[in-house]
Amino acid sequence: MTTTVIQHVLGRLKDLGITDIFGVPGDFAFPINDAICTDKNIRWIGCCNELNAAYAADGYARIKGFGALCTTYGVGELSAICGIAGAYAENLPVFHLVGMPGLATMESRGKVHHTLGNGEFDLFYKMTEPVACARAIMTPENCASETERLIAAARYYRQPVYMAFPLDYANIQVLGKADPIPTPPSDPASLEAAVNAIVAMLSKAKTAIIMPGKITSRLGLQDQVAELINSSGLLYATIASDKTAVDETHPNFIGIWSGQLGIPDEAQTFVEGADCILGLGAYMTDLFFGIIDRSKTMNIELHSVRVGHSVFRSVQMADALAELTRRLPKRTDVKGPKPVGLGEPEGSDNDPITAQGLYPRWEKFLKPNDILIQETGSSTFPMISARMPKDSVIYNQLLWAAIGWATPAAFGAAIASPKRRLVLITGEGSHQMTAQEVGQFERYGLKPIIFVLNNNGYLIERVLCENPGIEYNDLAQWNYHLLPAALGCNGWFTARVTTCGELDAAIVTAESSKTGAYIEVVTKKYDSHPTIKLDVQVFLA
Amino acid sequence: MTTTVIQHVLGRLKDLGITDIFGVPGDFAFPINDAICTDKNIRWIGCCNELNAAYAADGYARIKGFGALCTTYGVGELSAICGIAGAYAENLPVFHLVGMPGLATMESRGKVHHTLGNGEFDLFYKMTEPVACARAIMTPENCASETERLIAAARYYRQPVYMAFPLDYANIQVLGKADPIPTPPSDPASLEAAVNAIVAMLSKAKTAIIMPGKITSRLGLQDQVAELINSSGLLYATIASDKTAVDETHPNFIGIWSGQLGIPDEAQTFVEGADCILGLGAYMTDLFFGIIDRSKTMNIELHSVRVGHSVFRSVQMADALAELTRRLPKRTDVKGPKPVGLGEPEGSDNDPITAQGLYPRWEKFLKPNDILIQETGSSTFPMISARMPKDSVIYNQLLWAAIGWATPAAFGAAIASPKRRLVLITGEGSHQMTAQEVGQFERYGLKPIIFVLNNNGYLIERVLCENPGIEYNDLAQWNYHLLPAALGCNGWFTARVTTCGELDAAIVTAESSKTGAYIEVVTKKYDSHPTIKLDVQVFLA
Repeated sequence: MTTTVIQHVLGRLKDLGITDIFGVPGDFAFPINDAICTDKNIRWIGCCNELNAAYAADGYARIKGFGALCTTYGVGELSAICGIAGAYAENLPVFHLVGMPGLATMESRGKVHHTLGNGEFDLFYKMTEPVACARAIMTPENCASETERLIAAARYYRQPVYMAFPLDYANIQVLGKADPIPTPPSDPASLEAAVNAIVAMLSKAKTAIIMPGKITSRLGLQDQVAELINSSGLLYATIASDKTAVDETHPNFIGIWSGQLGIPDEAQTFVEGADCILGLGAYMTDLFFGIIDRSKTMNIELHSVRVGHSVFRSVQMADALAELTRRLPKRTDVKGPKPVGLGEPEGSDNDPITAQGLYPRWEKFLKPNDILIQETGSSTFPMISARMPKDSVIYNQLLWAAIGWATPAAFGAAIASPKRRLVLITGEGSHQMTAQEVGQFERYGLKPIIFVLNNNGYLIERVLCENPGIEYNDLAQWNYHLLPAALGCNGWFTARVTTCGELDAAIVTAESSKTGAYIEVVTKKYDSHPTIKLDVQVFLA
Repeated sequence: MTTTVIQHVLGRLKDLGITDIFGVPGDFAFPINDAICTDKNIRWIGCCNELNAAYAADGYARIKGFGALCTTYGVGELSAICGIAGAYAENLPVFHLVGMPGLATMESRGKVHHTLGNGEFDLFYKMTEPVACARAIMTPENCASETERLIAAARYYRQPVYMAFPLDYANIQVLGKADPIPTPPSDPASLEAAVNAIVAMLSKAKTAIIMPGKITSRLGLQDQVAELINSSGLLYATIASDKTAVDETHPNFIGIWSGQLGIPDEAQTFVEGADCILGLGAYMTDLFFGIIDRSKTMNIELHSVRVGHSVFRSVQMADALAELTRRLPKRTDVKGPKPVGLGEPEGSDNDPITAQGLYPRWEKFLKPNDILIQETGSSTFPMISARMPKDSVIYNQLLWAAIGWATPAAFGAAIASPKRRLVLITGEGSHQMTAQEVGQFERYGLKPIIFVLNNNGYLIERVLCENPGIEYNDLAQWNYHLLPAALGCNGWFTARVTTCGELDAAIVTAESSKTGAYIEVVTKKYDSHPTIKLDVQVFLA
């Protein structure tokens, strides 16, 4: 049996654990679309548009390690590109399969549909360069080797890969063979020097803290991270974007550290006062780390280790974790604060829903093993401070911070992990961007619990901008609770709640609902939680 | 009184007739957002997301000649880029105002939100290069001159322009002054040679036909085109994408010519048998023009004239039209076919809605002065064949052909021309892409009539692909007629019609409705109109 170009690529994607490909079909992509739909071990997951497909693949990759989407030429790939950029920023290896016109068409330089009409056919390939770690136009001759090169790049950089398939090449038999490219090993001397440096700094430190990053679990290293924490006895905290990188119910967990954006608490004080901080792939943005002396921080990165101002190249994360676990003595003298969470919810019965009523309720609502997809916005900050139950995870997108990400990302996460309870918390402004994807949950038999916080505008912007009441912070006034029915989520539990009593009742119903649930939570326009301490000078510096 | 960078730019955009700017606010764009909202002569038009804002600006520019949108850095501008590319392909001068971080932030190369985290701040500016005819990062020093350069480029190329505003520069006083750059005049010798060549070819032609392009009306030359047709006595036809470039009720109009995609009819035969074809900015894609001998065709383009294989450079369209009107003798011997339209609608009462029942009804429903926004898809082809009433116009997007364009473009067109009746015809697959923008009509007091053709999937793809029933052509099953209420269009007339009788009744109600109207028209899965004669070999060649 022969293997075509597209079949070969799909086969290798399956080897990575990809069993679902998100996308929107299109004529130039028909060979890819056909190959996906006729492959028994891979599912075509139709999305409403390509941006949503990219966000869905992002959500999927957060859980499965890799994701994929398929779009058509020009119109499709450019619609997705903001989502691909997000995956690049947030270190998610998403394979972007793009159908392109046939070679003869491209050589004719014709005014072809889905082009700019100027006879140029390589523009979109060029435009994607900054947001892909590797790219190729797949042909029968290069398919075997390029597929391995691109997979190796996705594994190495943990960023998106772009693969274009000319219409007349996708179904041609692959020529030649290529072996998978092994992951580069650590340089033994560099590894030893790096681990020596970490051990030395830790041994001198009176107080030290580990900062595990979420990328460790995407690499399948979550057990190694837990082992290092257990064997070293060190305490750990996480940065907002790495929240739940390690279970928050572990006794060594002290809380979240939000750097310049955080509210001073015991965890903040402990982190900032520690003699040293050891990041394990921690997502060290300047916003968070700018206030800590670099000489006190270390970070084990994907392929290097930084200790203070020294960088040790060619050290693989898994090797560094293993060596540290072997060499670090167990400390028994550590003492730190306990994570506190959001406290008791305020209000009951007919009381309006305030921030202090809402967020503690959401915290209590979360259950072990939940997946919480948290949109960027005014609900981000309090939910970062919420205590997460055992084995539950929260995903957010704090670097790229594209509002609208969460709704389709939640869909992608649900496809990746259909048996876990999926909770989406989004503001209504963000939700408006990509809300149509709610209909896909029902189409694919998924039963999320969706909370849409309706505070009559972009609250996070009201907080940040000069004149909170200015018109651009206003939105079209939707009747959100009517949306699921319009989008085909027939029979879902939906509610619009304005009082604490209604919210409590809706949560009870949602918890026992056999269908998806969609709850519009109405609060006052300017009611923000005290954890939103956004200093504009810091945020926009 | 001082003028800031952003105030200066807004002032010049107003000079072009732009009174509304579409967009989504964002922190790096606050100075732009603020300046728009505080300017009494310009409106901020909030959109649900940036792609929709770009499509809305496209629809606006089709009517007003120029359009504008405002997005934030990275996440905003990349979300819009597919729509900007469409405006580029379709020759629509849309000003894309982008808020970017302040200079100090960019120089710090920090891991800033809305970036890729790699310290690079010029990537998005670079990515936009292929889809903008001119670009600038606006500073107090360059503002006066760059604004004129960019406006001149937008006028000259009729394509989008990209203007980025660093956060800390937007509100600084403009330094220096610059005069508007005049439009280049025609080269008198080239103009004379071009007109001589056209007159010579026409005088030798026994049968000739004019093909007016829609770009003439965007240049404000519609009266000159009509004058040329009247004074020359020549017949005219239009290509699908130029339909209604000149009123279809004019006695010299013979019909539409769809080239290789057309159904042979009298107009097709006449065009293809004519001794010469004179395009007036006709949108001559290869798909349409590939079958006609180039030596028989002429086209007056924006800044040049092509006669057969000869190109005359530096000839401005207005000058060529004026000269031709002066010099062409009036022909009285011309005879051609009459446009035929779609015929009488089939079916009544409880008959299901077939294509032959639907499209003739839509044709009859259209009224003088209507604006019809026509989505790309299975409804495109029959509606191209429909006869359009006096002073009505149809807009489509046949080169870029991004499905999803029509719903936001209709919103933009309605903002540009709120007093004319606006009709949107879209397929449901396209509608799902951008449907949330329906809520904006109500928010801004607009009352469109929207038809959503629900044929249970992407019908145009079922026609084109190998296996019409394949899964990727299926969609989430929405209850479309419930959507307006969910999106806040309270009290709109909505209906779901499955029989000819229901359709007739819904049309009657929509026509007299004081609110917006939204009608879901349900047809069979594979019921396509005979005008859809898509030869896959041609379409995907």
